[in-house]
Amino acid sequence: MKIIIVGASGTMGKHLISAFEKDHEIIKVNTTGGDIPTDITSTASIENMYKKAGPFDALICTAGPTYVGPWKNMKDAEFRKGIDGKLMGQINLVLIGQYYIKPKGSFTLISGALTSDPQLNFANASAANGAVEAFVRAAAIELDNGIRINAVSPSVIENSPQYFSFFPGEIPVTMRQLEYGFRKSVFGANTGQIIKP
Amino acid sequence: MKIIIVGASGTMGKHLISAFEKDHEIIKVNTTGGDIPTDITSTASIENMYKKAGPFDALICTAGPTYVGPWKNMKDAEFRKGIDGKLMGQINLVLIGQYYIKPKGSFTLISGALTSDPQLNFANASAANGAVEAFVRAAAIELDNGIRINAVSPSVIENSPQYFSFFPGEIPVTMRQLEYGFRKSVFGANTGQIIKP
Repeated sequence: MKIIIVGASGTMGKHLISAFEKDHEIIKVNTTGGDIPTDITSTASIENMYKKAGPFDALICTAGPTYVGPWKNMKDAEFRKGIDGKLMGQINLVLIGQYYIKPKGSFTLISGALTSDPQLNFANASAANGAVEAFVRAAAIELDNGIRINAVSPSVIENSPQYFSFFPGEIPVTMRQLEYGFRKSVFGANTGQIIKP
Repeated sequence: MKIIIVGASGTMGKHLISAFEKDHEIIKVNTTGGDIPTDITSTASIENMYKKAGPFDALICTAGPTYVGPWKNMKDAEFRKGIDGKLMGQINLVLIGQYYIKPKGSFTLISGALTSDPQLNFANASAANGAVEAFVRAAAIELDNGIRINAVSPSVIENSPQYFSFFPGEIPVTMRQLEYGFRKSVFGANTGQIIKP
């Protein structure tokens, strides 16, 4: 398979590349560096990325910029970080990418447990996740040509211990669990699902 | 109680006004007309509305502009209608309104069944609803001074028969059920709840 991984330089992206690159062609996409530097907050940059990548079988997005910080400091401008990033960034990857992906291809987006289990300082991520998950269910009944779409919705990640103290009560998701969540979406046949690894 | 109703001229708003105005002081807010004309896509307009309204006990929002139409016509610009309207419009009503509302006051936002039960042509509303519902859960653990927040999440509304054909399989919510959903949020003690009337 030819798989585009957006967020290739992140904790999740690096793990997925090492897991998938033996058997698949991976196109690494980051804001800077990687195979095709791309700013997912720009529709022109996304369009350019797909043109350079050519037809592909699967897109995985693990990139989701949001505002993390005290509630009292959060105004419209801060909230737009997650709106333009994790929310519209990922939705535009689908709205544009549907015209470049191969028939029966798949999109796998990233959401997170904050959709239903909020934590202090993360209201922006909660809202972005909730939008992404509802969008996935809606897009699944709209996409043509057998194109599938799912989201992987992890809690805090084993390899990101700097976040553990912000997620009291959340058992960290192992990298293997996370990887298998993405495997279920990319190599399975489900669509419109929120996969909780 | 002093209750601000945003979307006062809509189907839901008019019903709630007729139900609540005997026992409560209602401040009617619409884009044009009403007591305080307000554009919820503008933070300056929201700020101005709260300054004119003065301290209040409850805010109800029934206004949620979104893009409704064929998936194939939906690009970033169309999707922003629901992002700037139903999503950020309502979130800014809370982020700004928390500094004007009385202690133990409440915010009641509008989401909808499309969060979990998508229908063709309504992906933008699904995403906005999903964001609003996750935001409500997150805001509930952040708001100070006993301020509560909930969302009412109806399916298609009895008094909006023009939408019935777009919602196959959805039993229309009666105006009484809808009213009692808002009653539960405004006059009850719940917070962080998605109320399905």
